[in-house]
Amino acid sequence: MTGIGSPCGACKFLRRKCVNGCVFAPYFSHEQGAAHFAAIHKVFGASNVSKLLMHLPVADRCEAALTISYEARARLQDPIYGCVSHIFALQQQVFNLQEQLASLKTQASQGLAMAVQLHPMDNFLSTSRGL
Amino acid sequence: MTGIGSPCGACKFLRRKCVNGCVFAPYFSHEQGAAHFAAIHKVFGASNVSKLLMHLPVADRCEAALTISYEARARLQDPIYGCVSHIFALQQQVFNLQEQLASLKTQASQGLAMAVQLHPMDNFLSTSRGL
Repeated sequence: MTGIGSPCGACKFLRRKCVNGCVFAPYFSHEQGAAHFAAIHKVFGASNVSKLLMHLPVADRCEAALTISYEARARLQDPIYGCVSHIFALQQQVFNLQEQLASLKTQASQGLAMAVQLHPMDNFLSTSRGL
Repeated sequence: MTGIGSPCGACKFLRRKCVNGCVFAPYFSHEQGAAHFAAIHKVFGASNVSKLLMHLPVADRCEAALTISYEARARLQDPIYGCVSHIFALQQQVFNLQEQLASLKTQASQGLAMAVQLHPMDNFLSTSRGL
């Protein structure tokens, strides 16, 4: 229970009595929790999520409820890929950044080689000055 | 059904008769599908996944089954974060690469400014040659 007589968002959604010590109550408020829980129930099922939370130490349950809620909403938005579409997009971004970085490093080393070829004294002076 | 009389991996796991047109059969083989389906059933529940697949066009179901299977296995491996831990790791990797790229770009522009200052004729020649 989240307040005197107020069921938590999960129990409100499930239309059941919210008892003291309800596993969902700390993470699904009476006011907004029902909407979040609707997605969770549709994708994972209340019973599966309840079991999952109860197997975790209390300190870890909030993070678990948040990530489960995120996954559920992502799956409703994108029923084919769910939050895996986010993983694909990030993998592509990593790949693009690695390509840019490699290209910039190549350009930098080519530029340095050319500078040394054109002005070897600069390089000697920089090295001997410890620059 | 995946073969003559062989139930698919999902029906084998659920110990039920695998009928023609079973929604799971194309994606969970008799041999290895049961192990994959066990994770899916534990995390999402067979009934939720069956509904989700049936609401999708047949052409999209294979990708959906794969991503659901991936999410389920990730949640069993990491019950707190599930596959969201992969998203966090990729976001961190993107951030680090962006930092490296910005730093390299700053170094490159500083190097270029210094080169122009030391040898303005090189810059003039490169520009006039269209290099």
